[in-house]
Order: sequence, then C-alpha cells, then structure tokens
Amino acid sequence: MSTERNVYLEDIPVETARQALVDALAEHGRAGVLKGERVPVREALGRVTSAPVVARLSSPHYHAAAMDGYAVRAADTVGATETRPLTLAANRVKAVNTGAALPPAYDAVIMIEHVQELDGAITLTAPVVPWQHVRMLGEDMVATEIVVPAGHRLRPMDLGAIAGCGHTHVVVRRRPRVVIVPTGSELVSAEGDPQPGQVIEYNSVVLAAQVQDAGGEAQVLAITPDDRQALRAALDDALEREPDLVLMLSGSSAGTRDYTSKLVQATGRLIVHGVAVRPGHPVIMGVAASGVPIIGVPGYPVSAALTGEIFVQPLLARWLGTQPDIATRPRVQATLTRRLSSPAGDDDYARVTVAEIDGRLLATPLNRGAGVITSLVRADGLALIPRFNEGVDRGGTVNVLLYRTLDEIRRTAVITGSHDPMLDLLAGHLAEQYPGSRLASASVGSLGGLVALSRGETHLAGTHLLDEATGEYNLPYLRRQLGGVAVRVLTFAHREQGLIVPSGNPGGVRGLDDLLRLRYVNRQRGAGTRVLLDYLLKQHGIDAATISGYAHEEYTHMAVAGAVASGVADAGLAVRSAALALGLDFISIGWERYDLVVPATQIEHPIAARVLAVVSSGDFKRALGAQPGYDVRETGNVVFDGTL
Amino acid sequence: MSTERNVYLEDIPVETARQALVDALAEHGRAGVLKGERVPVREALGRVTSAPVVARLSSPHYHAAAMDGYAVRAADTVGATETRPLTLAANRVKAVNTGAALPPAYDAVIMIEHVQELDGAITLTAPVVPWQHVRMLGEDMVATEIVVPAGHRLRPMDLGAIAGCGHTHVVVRRRPRVVIVPTGSELVSAEGDPQPGQVIEYNSVVLAAQVQDAGGEAQVLAITPDDRQALRAALDDALEREPDLVLMLSGSSAGTRDYTSKLVQATGRLIVHGVAVRPGHPVIMGVAASGVPIIGVPGYPVSAALTGEIFVQPLLARWLGTQPDIATRPRVQATLTRRLSSPAGDDDYARVTVAEIDGRLLATPLNRGAGVITSLVRADGLALIPRFNEGVDRGGTVNVLLYRTLDEIRRTAVITGSHDPMLDLLAGHLAEQYPGSRLASASVGSLGGLVALSRGETHLAGTHLLDEATGEYNLPYLRRQLGGVAVRVLTFAHREQGLIVPSGNPGGVRGLDDLLRLRYVNRQRGAGTRVLLDYLLKQHGIDAATISGYAHEEYTHMAVAGAVASGVADAGLAVRSAALALGLDFISIGWERYDLVVPATQIEHPIAARVLAVVSSGDFKRALGAQPGYDVRETGNVVFDGTL
Repeated sequence: MSTERNVYLEDIPVETARQALVDALAEHGRAGVLKGERVPVREALGRVTSAPVVARLSSPHYHAAAMDGYAVRAADTVGATETRPLTLAANRVKAVNTGAALPPAYDAVIMIEHVQELDGAITLTAPVVPWQHVRMLGEDMVATEIVVPAGHRLRPMDLGAIAGCGHTHVVVRRRPRVVIVPTGSELVSAEGDPQPGQVIEYNSVVLAAQVQDAGGEAQVLAITPDDRQALRAALDDALEREPDLVLMLSGSSAGTRDYTSKLVQATGRLIVHGVAVRPGHPVIMGVAASGVPIIGVPGYPVSAALTGEIFVQPLLARWLGTQPDIATRPRVQATLTRRLSSPAGDDDYARVTVAEIDGRLLATPLNRGAGVITSLVRADGLALIPRFNEGVDRGGTVNVLLYRTLDEIRRTAVITGSHDPMLDLLAGHLAEQYPGSRLASASVGSLGGLVALSRGETHLAGTHLLDEATGEYNLPYLRRQLGGVAVRVLTFAHREQGLIVPSGNPGGVRGLDDLLRLRYVNRQRGAGTRVLLDYLLKQHGIDAATISGYAHEEYTHMAVAGAVASGVADAGLAVRSAALALGLDFISIGWERYDLVVPATQIEHPIAARVLAVVSSGDFKRALGAQPGYDVRETGNVVFDGTL
Repeated sequence: MSTERNVYLEDIPVETARQALVDALAEHGRAGVLKGERVPVREALGRVTSAPVVARLSSPHYHAAAMDGYAVRAADTVGATETRPLTLAANRVKAVNTGAALPPAYDAVIMIEHVQELDGAITLTAPVVPWQHVRMLGEDMVATEIVVPAGHRLRPMDLGAIAGCGHTHVVVRRRPRVVIVPTGSELVSAEGDPQPGQVIEYNSVVLAAQVQDAGGEAQVLAITPDDRQALRAALDDALEREPDLVLMLSGSSAGTRDYTSKLVQATGRLIVHGVAVRPGHPVIMGVAASGVPIIGVPGYPVSAALTGEIFVQPLLARWLGTQPDIATRPRVQATLTRRLSSPAGDDDYARVTVAEIDGRLLATPLNRGAGVITSLVRADGLALIPRFNEGVDRGGTVNVLLYRTLDEIRRTAVITGSHDPMLDLLAGHLAEQYPGSRLASASVGSLGGLVALSRGETHLAGTHLLDEATGEYNLPYLRRQLGGVAVRVLTFAHREQGLIVPSGNPGGVRGLDDLLRLRYVNRQRGAGTRVLLDYLLKQHGIDAATISGYAHEEYTHMAVAGAVASGVADAGLAVRSAALALGLDFISIGWERYDLVVPATQIEHPIAARVLAVVSSGDFKRALGAQPGYDVRETGNVVFDGTL
C-alpha cells in the first residue's frame, strides 16, 4: 500500500463523504446492487426484485367461463329474439361453471338465468356476442410479459401476481450482511447490574435494528475492550465472516476514534476521518484490503443512531437499489417556537417535536446532548440546518424530516407547562379510548405553559400556580398572563406536594426549616413547584439565599427525585408519586390544585376535545384516584369558562 | 343455538359489518388487545409494546465524566483567576476519562486542556460551576420513568432506549395467529403446469403476506376441494390450531359462498353475509362456538386482496392496538381524467393510477375486473366512491388512498399513448440511471396519447400515426390534434410491424391479402397500429368489413400476440417483439417511426427531462438496438421543436 493511498478526507460534507466511500467501493466492484438469490414467493414479502419478473404462464392460461351457465358458439345464437326463441341442441352447448375451460371452438357463455334447459338443449331469446362472459387467455397476464419490474419492493399483491403466473420462487437481491463490532472497555451488556463507570452497550441494538429495517442482516459480535490487539482480532474476525459492511462502534472514551482510524489504515485504506455533520461528526470510513467497507460509528447514542440513518442505511439502500428511510420520510416546513443555534461548519440535524396548532406546523427543538437517546425517542423529526448557517430564529422556518406521518402528528395533542408524572397515565388512557391519538407533553413549567398558550403554541397548558397575595391557585396568574383571552380552565387533580428525602429519612427532615442544614435540589424558575417553594419560604421567613443548592435547578419531579436518590441532594420539593417511584421518603407539605387550561379556539377541536373527554371519564378518574398523592374529587370540574 | 341467534346481516355497510363482528367477539372476550409476551429486545423491532416500558436502571446510572480531565469539588475552585491561579493538591483531584464515574462528593470535571498538571496536582485559572462536564445520574432516564408508552410500535431508537435502561427483554403484544384455508376444487398450487380448468391458487399468498404486514403470523393449510365433508374437516383442523382468526378463501365457483356460510352456521354463528362494498361484496363473517372469528374471503383476487385490507388487517390492528394500513396510507384529493361509474348501493374502491402533472394530481381509473390482480399491482391507489353515489364525472374530485407515497408519485413520469413493449425497457433504465424515478405507461393508443397531452394529463405521449395523405409519420397528426401547442418531438425508435401468426405459420400467411380467409385480431380505434392497418387495407383495396375478427379489439401488442397464441385468432398486426415473446411467427410488413412528444412546459421539468436523457443515453440505445425489430439509428433525434 503506497503512502499516497493513505491520504484521507477530514471533516468533509456529508455528500462528499458518501461519494468518497462509493468511489472506493467502485474500485473493488462493490458499489452496485447485490446479486440475486432465489427465494420462495411465500417468503419474499418486502424483498427487492433483482430482475423484472416475467409471467411464466398466462393468466388465465385458458379461456375461462366467467359465469355459471352454458358455453356456446356465438355464431350459433344469431337471430334469437323474445318472439322467436332459438333452441341449441345438447351437442352444440356445454354446461360450465365459473372458471371452467371453454371447449375448443366455443367462444361465449350464456348465464344460466338467461336460458331454458331441457334434456341438455337450451333455448335462448337473444343472441350473444363473441367472448361474452369469457375471461380470455391472458386477460390478466400474458406469458413473457413483465409482471413486476426490477428493483421493486414486493408487496402482498405483487406476490399474488407472481404466484398467479406460475412462479413458486422469485429472484430477489441478497440481503446485505453487516457485522457489528461494539468496542469500549467501559461497556457491558444489559444483563445484571452495571457498576459505576460501566456503561450498558446498546448502540449495537440500534444499529442492528436499523440494518434490519433497511433490509439487511446484522450480526453483532461480543464487546471488545479498548486494546489494539483485541480490536485488530475483532476486526479480522468480522472480515472473515464475508460481510458486505463492518461497523466498528466506538466507545465513549476520546481515544477510540483514533484506534478505529489506525485499525482501518492497518487493514486497508482510511478514506474519511470526520464528517461535517452533527450529531455524528466523528464518523470514520474506510475499506479493508478486500474492498469491504468499514464504518467507524461514534459512541454517543444519538450520533450513532444518526450515523446509521445518514450513512449506513443509504449504503444498504444503494446495494438493494431502494430509497433509504431518510430519503422517503415525510418532509414538512415548520415554524420554530424557539431559536435553534447551529454550528456553522456542519449540517445539523436537530431533534424537534412537531405539533399542528390552529393549522400551523410548529417545531420545538429538544435541547439535549448527543448522549440522550430518549431525545431521539421523543423527537417527531429532525430539523435540518444546513452548513454555513448559524441557526434559525424563533418564528423562522425549518425543514423537518418527520419520524411520524403528518397524520399521526395531527392526531397528537400537545400539553405544555407544568410536569406531572400522571400525564403519562393520561396519555395511556387517551391512546386506549381514542386509538391513534397521542398526547405529547412538554415540561417547561407552569409559567412556560401559559406563555406557549398565549403564543398559540400548545393545545393545552398544565398549571399549578399559587398566587402569593390571595393564596388562590391559577386564576390570578392566568388573568395576569392571559388577560383578554377566552379559555376554559378545568381541574386535572389535586395533588400532594412535599419534601422528597432519602429512604428512611436519615437527615430527620420534618419540614421546611430543615432545609437550612441540607443540600437542596430546586426546580427551575417558572415552575409551579418553585413558586410554591418561594411562597412557603416567605411564609416561614426563610431567605432563599441561605439554602444550599437553591441554584441547582431540575426540570421535572422525577429529576428532583433522581437527584435525591443519587445522593446529589438531601431534599427537594416534588409530588408524592415521584418519591414513590424511586422508593424515597416523602414529608407532606400540602395539597395543590393542578388545572388544565384550554383556549376557547381549541375546545371544539377534536384533539383537545378528546383529552378533555378522557380527563372527565370515569375510567381515567378511577385510575388517577388510585395513585397515592392524587385527589380526583374535583377532576374534570370547570373552574372557569370565559374571557380572562 | 337458538334460531334467533342465526339471524344475520346481509349486504350491510362496511362499518356496520366491522362493528357486528367486533360485538360478537366482545361477547367472547376477544375484541380487545392480545396479551403480552416477553421477547428479547434485539428481536423486538416492529413489535408493539403491551404496557409502558419503565426504566429498570437510570441512565447514566451514576454521575459520569462528560470529558477527559479531572474530577474536582466545585467549591474547591472558587477564586481561581488568570492572575491568581489556584493549585489543587493530588488528593483533591482525580483524573477521569469520559464516561468514568465521579468519586463520591466530587461534583464537577475540568477539561484536561484547561489545567496544568504536576505530580498529580493541578493548577487552574478559573473556577468551575457545580456539575460542569458531568452527565448526571438519570440525565437520560430516571429509573421507574416511562421510556416508551404502551401500544407503541418499536423503532430502532426505542430498542436502544429500552436496552439502555437495563432491559434485555420487553413485553410486546402477541402476534395474532391466522389460519388460512384455501378452498376450491379447481385450485392447484403454482408448481407444475396447470391444465385448462385448473386455476393457480394465490389468494392465500396475498392474504398471508397481508397478515404478516399487519404484524400477524399466517399458517396456510392445503387446498380443500368443494366438498362439505372435506371443508368441515378443514375448518375443524384450522380451529384446532388455536388461531385468533380463520380465513376461508372461497374458490371462484358460485356455490362456495353458500358452502362457507353454511359451514360457519354449523360451527357457530353466521353474522354477516355480504357487505355493501366493491370489490369484496360476497365477504362472510361469523364466529365459531369457541368465539374464534371466521371470515369467508371472496374468490376473485382483487376482492380477496381488498377484503384483506378492509376487514382482516383492521381486525389484526385492533388486536395489536395499532392503526391498520388502510387508515395510515396517504390520502390525497385528485382530479379524475375519466368518468368513474359506481354502483349506488356500495362503497366502491376503484383502482386508479395517480400522476402529478403541472402541479395537479390526476387520477385515472383502471377499468379492469376483480379477476385482474395486475390492476392492483399497477394501481397507485384506491379512489373511494362512497355509497349512494353513482359515480364521479371527468374533472370531478375523488379521495384517493395511496399505495405509494406522494413523493414516489412525484418522481413518476407518465407516458400515455401507443403501447410498445420496450417502454418496460425504458422504465428499467430510468430506474437504474435515476434511482427512485419511475415510468408509468398508459396504453390508450396513439390518438389517446395526444388527447391526454392536449388536456395536460401526461408528461409525454408515445405516438406512431401514419398520415394517409402524405405517408408521413406523426407530424401531420400532431398538427391536427395539437395545433398551436409548443412541443418537442423526438424519435424513440423505428420498429418493425408485421402479421403475427401461429408458430410454423400453419395458415401459410404471406401478406395482407391472406387476411380475407383468416380470423383476424384487431387493435382498438385510435391505436397507431389500427391506423396503419386501415392505411394498408386501403392501399390493397381491401374492404375492412370483409375481414373476420376486424371487430375483435385488443389494447396492446402482447394481447394481440396472446390471442394468436391461444388460437382465438389466426393473425394480428403487431410489433416483432410481441411475436418473439410468445414464440410466434412474424411476417414483416414494414418499419414505422415511434416518436415521443413532450409539451414545452414539461421539457425542463426533471421528470420528463430524465426520461429524455435516458432515451438519448448510449446505454439505453444499445439495449434497445439489441432487440429484434428495433432500429435505433435515429433514437433521440429531435424531429420537431416549436409550436405546432
């Protein structure tokens, strides 16, 4: 291998990277579609034809009666009328059922209802035209005709047509074989309980499923630690399995990218070392001496998943002659509800939720790191911010590649505002009572929900805001934030707030005064629970500045409970259900009213109407009331209906 | 069983039929979602969760360094500045790599680039905030939180999240088990060569694939002849396999519908006997004594396939808690290019092709019987004409459920007009040279193509029309039909026309004069080949009325060849390739020019432009030129470019 051939491309655009790999594959004759293999028609659903399928037999393969009746020669029937019926002797007619073959020289069928039969002879009162009630040979398919073109993904009716013209087997493109090598000394499988510092390996689960989705076959090897010898042995093992593609999954440590690139260099030729795309930047591409491509997939889960969508699936699609998922996904334009910043040098695929409110499609960025796989699970799509673009402002338009159909998004109700773990329960009941409906919740705090509502960016807002002056829940805040807006406010539940402390309450916490001697975990500004804390602190004459951890903000009740469970904090204010979920102790502070706010413009809209119907349904109230810390006696009650 | 319970519903609307079956299933506790089963996460792609998946472990399950560097206590770093650097002793810091666990009581990470290290001690020039460069426990998922809701079809990233929070298995809804019983004495499998009167059974192929597509498992039993005892035994066999659903596939004979209904009555309860839907009218529904539903599927292939989409898949979706295909398919409104008549009493699902021309979506009905499975293969969608509606006129709007994405339709070029078998070759080259592009051809004859073009209903027209007065091809006709329209005309090929006769030419046909003593098969009015025949007959002084079979019209060259091959006719005028395809003899009459006509408005449009580029490409010309009966010396030449 000459040194010249070791020149590689660093941090190049996506298309250049793809093309560089394809060019290298072409040198080895590996850039085209894969060869065909013969499979039974009954096992060919979803496979891709490698050649046009031509009819082996015509269908029908004979002239067939299309009705139950009598086969005749049309010429024999000329002259028959109502007034001068014609009788055909038994030797000039033949009784046939639907599907039966016409005898030679016969060219028409008379329906049984249209004749009188006597001893095999029939009498008719009208002539028939040639080929009446006959399915002629080849009506559906003529032998040698193309039934299904090459490169076609086989659907149920295609299989029917292929079988119908006499094939038991069909030649389809071989499934691309992908060997996946997870690497990283910190990685362990999901079995058992990992120790601190050990990370569950699951990128191979995602990539293998993506390969399967794209019509390939994935083989996942054992986890290989970050050791040159072991990595080399694993790659050799992978290459010996005669794969079409090897994926080396990097671990999270900074060094693994270099391991992979050096390995690829040692095994063949490194072509691409980093691509101008986010997430997914550190992707590596090369080919082994045999010409088998090797893709080094970055370790962060979101980067790994997007590498699968942007590079791996399109390569498989190329071999199958199909369109990759990312090319066929619905594309929409949506309006941003928040500014989306983007690194100027990279194509940026930002995870967003998408909602349709009042006929407008709105995209909200999920501002989470590439390590948060749930951000991809929650995303409705990817907003593409092209290179040389430093972002898009709130109100600007972005192109979004949807993970769901637009229909699905239109059946999705969005509730924005205060977080409550029971919104998941509500979502479950909605999906059950109205199949196809979804509830998406955005936890931005009670005040954030009211802002979203005033901007027309949500179907419903969830709020529990205690007015310091009156001690009244929600309505005073609503009047301040949404004055002049017509809304309906109805109660979701009363819920119990309290201090979450470690199991067994080792700190002996009894109330708010104990916060002065503990590490507290707080909620973000604008959260109803934060408003409640500040109200209570004022009542108790406690200066917030004196509480250690007051600046440590989390966005959900569960995150507060998580901070306590992990020992980061000794106490935090949250709902009882969050404490219960993690087996923590709970010191009750009191009950508060959590309301749903619906703009008048949304009330009649099926999406919001369904959510309200579910909240008021007996089934849901029973389920919610059975949860500790929830009181449903007023659930569904309309607290306010009119213009604020 | 009381007589009352044997009352059944005849010819009722689709929704009533579905509901009647669901009500009957509910009585047996079979109308809800199926129970869950535990499957490995790595095998769960596409399966549907039967309960919310809650995180077993938090992710991360410890506070993890997000950078390579040093773990510190943030409080220790207060006061460090550029001018007054701070040194932390080796026992107050710990070197950590990305992903490593923070030691207890440590709460921040400083990047290795930002410190000076000496003998384990580090010097910094700025303080750090708590939790800097730390992925906190539960940042992605907090144990007990819902990761994926119930009733969710699992995608690759969902599997990643489920594995990432410590699950090796996931509980998903059991796949519905469907046993399929093909019935009919005339039916044979696709192996071997069926005799006249024998029909290849392939509805079971279609239905089994539809079951698979909908997430179920199908078992296909052997073909059962139309014999009460045998049918009863087959149904008993099917029911003993503990299915969730039995499909009895009717044969084509009129009696089988009654067989099935009587069988269902004998086994349990007949509920629905015929539904007001076309195709698919004779569908039968009932439940066995055990409560297992039985659907009698009509025998015509299109009826069978639509019964699968309208009744079988939605029932499976109900059991899985998902949306059936027919509900999630893209729906568009399209303008009809031809009147679509419809029986007033039925919901009519008409197979249509859909094209986008000049930004308008156009639907063209495929007027074929329910026995023609290829009409379903060719269809881009189903136009729904609701009950109490006797049809929609040309230019009217219909709702279409698409079989393809709108994107796919937008990448489809439509060529309308004269049929040439080599348009399939062109389609193949187009798909190869421009992946994702499709060519759809509509065979309506040369004149029909010009009419479609003048109405803006096609991207290209294919035409070979000989002007009787001048003997010139195409342009005189074009001037008459499209006067004032700006078009480009380019040559597809010269092709050889001739008389197709049986192999060995038993009739000793030598030319047109022989047609007087033979049974001829003709092409339809408006077809270029028909125009050619009429021109030649006039030249030879032959009166068309004296030719037997002149009234027998077929729409394609292959259908003409098929008529000769099957003995229906002794001769027909067609291109050489059609004779070759069926191994027939060919008596050449001469060469003609087949041109493509493109409106000026389409030339720059990528769809038409790609087709023209392929026609002119060396690859395609070589392939076409290699076909007997085609001359490509002028292929791609522009014959005319301007306003006609």
